[in-house]
Amino acid sequence: MKRLKLDALFIVTEVNRYYFTGLLTSNGVILAERGEEPLFFTDFRYLTAAKKELHSMPSQLLWHPNEELDVLVGFGSGWKRVGFEGSISATRYNNFRAALPDAEWVDIQSEIATLRSVKSVAECNAMRCACAANDLMLENVLNKVETGMTEWEISVLIRQEADMLGQGESFEAIVCAGRNGAECHHHPDKTVLRRNKPLLIDLGVKVDHYCSDMTRTTFFGKPTELYKKIYKIVLDANRRAISKIKPGITCGSIDKVARDYIDKAGYGRYFGHSLGHSLGLDIHENPNFSTGNKIILKPGMILSVEPGIYLPGRLGVRVEDIILVTRDGCEVLSSADRSGVV
Amino acid sequence: MKRLKLDALFIVTEVNRYYFTGLLTSNGVILAERGEEPLFFTDFRYLTAAKKELHSMPSQLLWHPNEELDVLVGFGSGWKRVGFEGSISATRYNNFRAALPDAEWVDIQSEIATLRSVKSVAECNAMRCACAANDLMLENVLNKVETGMTEWEISVLIRQEADMLGQGESFEAIVCAGRNGAECHHHPDKTVLRRNKPLLIDLGVKVDHYCSDMTRTTFFGKPTELYKKIYKIVLDANRRAISKIKPGITCGSIDKVARDYIDKAGYGRYFGHSLGHSLGLDIHENPNFSTGNKIILKPGMILSVEPGIYLPGRLGVRVEDIILVTRDGCEVLSSADRSGVV
Repeated sequence: MKRLKLDALFIVTEVNRYYFTGLLTSNGVILAERGEEPLFFTDFRYLTAAKKELHSMPSQLLWHPNEELDVLVGFGSGWKRVGFEGSISATRYNNFRAALPDAEWVDIQSEIATLRSVKSVAECNAMRCACAANDLMLENVLNKVETGMTEWEISVLIRQEADMLGQGESFEAIVCAGRNGAECHHHPDKTVLRRNKPLLIDLGVKVDHYCSDMTRTTFFGKPTELYKKIYKIVLDANRRAISKIKPGITCGSIDKVARDYIDKAGYGRYFGHSLGHSLGLDIHENPNFSTGNKIILKPGMILSVEPGIYLPGRLGVRVEDIILVTRDGCEVLSSADRSGVV
Repeated sequence: MKRLKLDALFIVTEVNRYYFTGLLTSNGVILAERGEEPLFFTDFRYLTAAKKELHSMPSQLLWHPNEELDVLVGFGSGWKRVGFEGSISATRYNNFRAALPDAEWVDIQSEIATLRSVKSVAECNAMRCACAANDLMLENVLNKVETGMTEWEISVLIRQEADMLGQGESFEAIVCAGRNGAECHHHPDKTVLRRNKPLLIDLGVKVDHYCSDMTRTTFFGKPTELYKKIYKIVLDANRRAISKIKPGITCGSIDKVARDYIDKAGYGRYFGHSLGHSLGLDIHENPNFSTGNKIILKPGMILSVEPGIYLPGRLGVRVEDIILVTRDGCEVLSSADRSGVV
């Protein structure tokens, strides 16, 4: 707040409310005035929990979502610069502006994203649990998958497991049988998994509000020479990139490790996406392992490492792990089998 | 555009893009200048489909989401008043404003909602299909439900059916066993459905992008006197409200029919929500059957009618049907059994 010369900031989205209070609330406002203790306003449904569990700031009653404007008008008469979340709707933002017509509104979305990019000890533990649940989920699913099932049926198995092991999927699973693996965001359909074909599964589960993510490519039957060759290149790219992760270097340099390796192997043009993304309370956070990204890795950052090679009409392979940047390297949070065969 | 004196309007959200083009696209812009044919910009992934299927407007190539600003700058130099969707993020809205600093931006969210509130013949047919699928979904689920199952297991059955019958759930199903029915937005948990207890299920499925919604309360075993009494009041309130629906009267008057009836029966304070909401491409649209709502019903509007009585710690009953306002009354799109017992 000091650096941005803000007199106040006003947090109203559910995920950031959860981030700052540790409480899941469908309605509420965090108001922080410079030099003052922050306040949390929520409605009667959450007030009891907030008064009991939230020790970092006092909680007050807010009856109705519309009353967030009353809070603004009541507290904001002297504010000159106010921080807000750029992810709120334009309609809501215009209501804020009308409530305090003399204030200058400063979009602090990227500052919050920067805060959230370095996970606390508790968050790292939540992510360890979510990734462990994801390992187990894949194992349970693969134990039930048989050739002859459709992608759709496999995706239903994944959803069931995600509901049983956690708070549901962190995103809609990608299930690609055979050549569908070449479409990196294929929607599960009625394609049948056949013997002697690969299966690519990209899946995640939410545990205690934190999102996991993982991709494994495996093979039912006797792997073809092409599959074995491509699989080895992708897995090596994943392993090499992970071996280079440590604090103090840029995100782009890690993307480059995997990209150069795949390039040298002759498949650079078949790896069309970034190497990975951050994740936490949201499945996509910042920063990314993307080409040229100059953001410096810090201990506590959690990202995916997911190189892939997609040969249109033939096959696709992706191997994705989640890593936590540590003081001197990284911890790999995903530990499901990487043999590439069932 | 004439009434609001707009020189142009700029549509960028997925659901409104689908509404105006009939194409599902994850990136694109509809640009309409007053007196000109509208233009559709999308990226290479959708351009072939757009050129083939979209006859109402020409389609042009847009490479990247950021290029929507280039479209604004390229076309918008003479614009004074531009309509935009208030549901876009404040960050994006501020980018629009910066791209055309001299234009006045007019929030047309409610005008679009008004357009979308009256469904076309094709939309009515899509809603008939979605509601028929919902009837079948409930029947399939109830055929599999047995006492001894948890709410959670029942909710997984619903998701599986929604995936098989359509494009998944239109919202996360509410499943309440026994006294949990008294919480009108209860999350499914490990509560076991026992014999001689009620079960409340609120569920919906998406078919061809349109959302259905329905609630049924039923009873496993021999209904108690209290359940029979409350069930009859709620069902009568639903039937009476539906019998009064016709074009030309206010939404509030229909809410009042059900509310007065429940009030007279002595349970007014246990019916704490509005009678219903519109739905279509989104599960919640406008207008609502809410107290005092002065919006006039028109043929083609599609709303839910969902009175309920919730007795804390004892039981809850809700009966929800979807109706389509016709020229002289309404058509009830939901037809699942309303006997209130299995």
